[in-house]
Amino acid sequence: MIIDCHGHYTTAPAALQKFREAQIAGFKAGSDLSMSAEFKIGDDEIRNSLENAQLKLQRARGTDLTIFSPRASAMAHHIGSETTSLRWSQACNDLIHRVVELYPDNFVGVCQLPQSPGAAPAHSAAELERCVRELGFIGCNLNPDPSGGHWTSPPLTDRHWYPLYEKMVELDVPAMVHVSSSCNPNFHATGAHYINADTTAFMQFLTGDLFVDFPTLRFIIPHGGGAVPYHWGRYRGLAQDLKRPPLADLLLKNVFFDTCVYHLPGIELLLKVIPADNILFGSEMVGAVRSIDPETGQYFDDTKRYLDALPLNEADRHKIFEANARRVFPRLDARLAKRQAQFAERNAQPARQGVNHES
Amino acid sequence: MIIDCHGHYTTAPAALQKFREAQIAGFKAGSDLSMSAEFKIGDDEIRNSLENAQLKLQRARGTDLTIFSPRASAMAHHIGSETTSLRWSQACNDLIHRVVELYPDNFVGVCQLPQSPGAAPAHSAAELERCVRELGFIGCNLNPDPSGGHWTSPPLTDRHWYPLYEKMVELDVPAMVHVSSSCNPNFHATGAHYINADTTAFMQFLTGDLFVDFPTLRFIIPHGGGAVPYHWGRYRGLAQDLKRPPLADLLLKNVFFDTCVYHLPGIELLLKVIPADNILFGSEMVGAVRSIDPETGQYFDDTKRYLDALPLNEADRHKIFEANARRVFPRLDARLAKRQAQFAERNAQPARQGVNHES
Repeated sequence: MIIDCHGHYTTAPAALQKFREAQIAGFKAGSDLSMSAEFKIGDDEIRNSLENAQLKLQRARGTDLTIFSPRASAMAHHIGSETTSLRWSQACNDLIHRVVELYPDNFVGVCQLPQSPGAAPAHSAAELERCVRELGFIGCNLNPDPSGGHWTSPPLTDRHWYPLYEKMVELDVPAMVHVSSSCNPNFHATGAHYINADTTAFMQFLTGDLFVDFPTLRFIIPHGGGAVPYHWGRYRGLAQDLKRPPLADLLLKNVFFDTCVYHLPGIELLLKVIPADNILFGSEMVGAVRSIDPETGQYFDDTKRYLDALPLNEADRHKIFEANARRVFPRLDARLAKRQAQFAERNAQPARQGVNHES
Repeated sequence: MIIDCHGHYTTAPAALQKFREAQIAGFKAGSDLSMSAEFKIGDDEIRNSLENAQLKLQRARGTDLTIFSPRASAMAHHIGSETTSLRWSQACNDLIHRVVELYPDNFVGVCQLPQSPGAAPAHSAAELERCVRELGFIGCNLNPDPSGGHWTSPPLTDRHWYPLYEKMVELDVPAMVHVSSSCNPNFHATGAHYINADTTAFMQFLTGDLFVDFPTLRFIIPHGGGAVPYHWGRYRGLAQDLKRPPLADLLLKNVFFDTCVYHLPGIELLLKVIPADNILFGSEMVGAVRSIDPETGQYFDDTKRYLDALPLNEADRHKIFEANARRVFPRLDARLAKRQAQFAERNAQPARQGVNHES
């Protein structure tokens, strides 16, 4: 089974964006809209939005299941108030839930959190709990910079974030560290802000003692870990110079990297320096880069192709494509195990009946 | 000849730091100190500070000449006023000049600019001109974020920076894009802020038209280009999706990367994806990581060792270790050519005399 740990609903029906625009206009005028019948999205619209995009690409690339979350760049936690962010998150998460209901074999949900600059992370715990317990989601995307490029929150290792981590541990769900769009003109969102946030989060984890306090807390650092694998020697050396434990002990039980790196040499480096136990297949599709690489004639974000081109033994291949995702997302593992048991039972019943007929 | 394009005077005599502390205390008390006799540094102190550090490592590693600038993390442009920054830059640059005077075969100077948050980059032009014309420096370090981690300046492609670029073009000197320490607790200086700034600057160059306006302007992005080579596919794809020209046309005549990447797989990737014409040997020594890699038994920052371990043809090797530095720093080339001519002349005279003796 091939699980893609990093997909966003970048192709959502236009009514979602219309609601967002109305919400932002409402906020400016002093009100906070909730999603309503005015912005109704039909099941067929959802199907259409996926059939020619994520589902088509799943089939073409031979992947099975995408861990699916709202469009990351649209989270835009810096817009409006905490209420704005909550209602927007609810609308986006509810839509992901509908996707999963329509295509339970193809998608499983990860939620957007209703973060807001200055708001306590504890306030995100309720929406996380709703999504996990009521909608069957298996994780969340955590924005380390709800200000959108001004980096005004404390580092992820600060106690500021602990109430949310307590809820994550209670629910046994991981977070992907994922910023949103940037309102700082220095940072292009997908070309700088995303990658910088990945690198920044890793260095915060390296210098802090977060995993002493939360030994089972788990984070995925997307986009191949930002700059980290390329500078793995620098990080090993910094840990040593700072008298920190070796990285394997310090954070590799808690921190994982996806494979959203869009060329073969990058994936090759990732596999060379990061243990296979810490790599989860991901493609970010349909996402940051949507076109075909003229050097290969293939989509830049067809990251499975790079993995397939490299000499991976079966055990590591199984970890990267399936087992690590099931380990990092235990609720996914439980769901898949249940489905596999149901499937086995369904297959077993006619066989027993057959035996009865013949006896 | 082996030219290291990235060295900082991280081992400067203690009196420099004492001056800095007095200067910061003075600023808080309402005055702006200049370097004075009170903080006198003797030639022997300079020699001692280098003999057991940079010079010893040059000899041990077989490198010849280091392009040498003040300690980057100590530039701290966010501290004090524009005058504070000017006087601190002058003190640091004057000390680099003394290093070069004492060891003209081992070091050549690159200056710190007297940047300050909100100050016009034009104000840095005078110190750049002084360093180049009076002290014989060959380039500068340009901080894209004088706020120290709050990123309050416009992007490097903004006209805000143009007066400084005009001076750089007039003097025919490049800049290394190099931030300083971070006063934002999110960003560890050498583990996050440095690397993020490198990635950020590259993406700014990718999205802007700076090199249309300044076709001869040249930047070195240090630390192996931040995350850029690891994500080279992402950047090629983003350029394509954004309808920008191919990277080779857009910026590879103007943007160069050093080799400050502290493990073999990182350097291997860099050589695979970045043209040899755009790579300058650098080690950042004595710098961000000072210890020995237990996996190799060698210093993490002995980057020449990684290059030596990889299959480089002679032409590319010559580019990376010498020719590119001479091309990117034309004033270095002129200086070396002059020295080589003098050397040749000195060697030729006794030979002619010898011939005369025999005739």
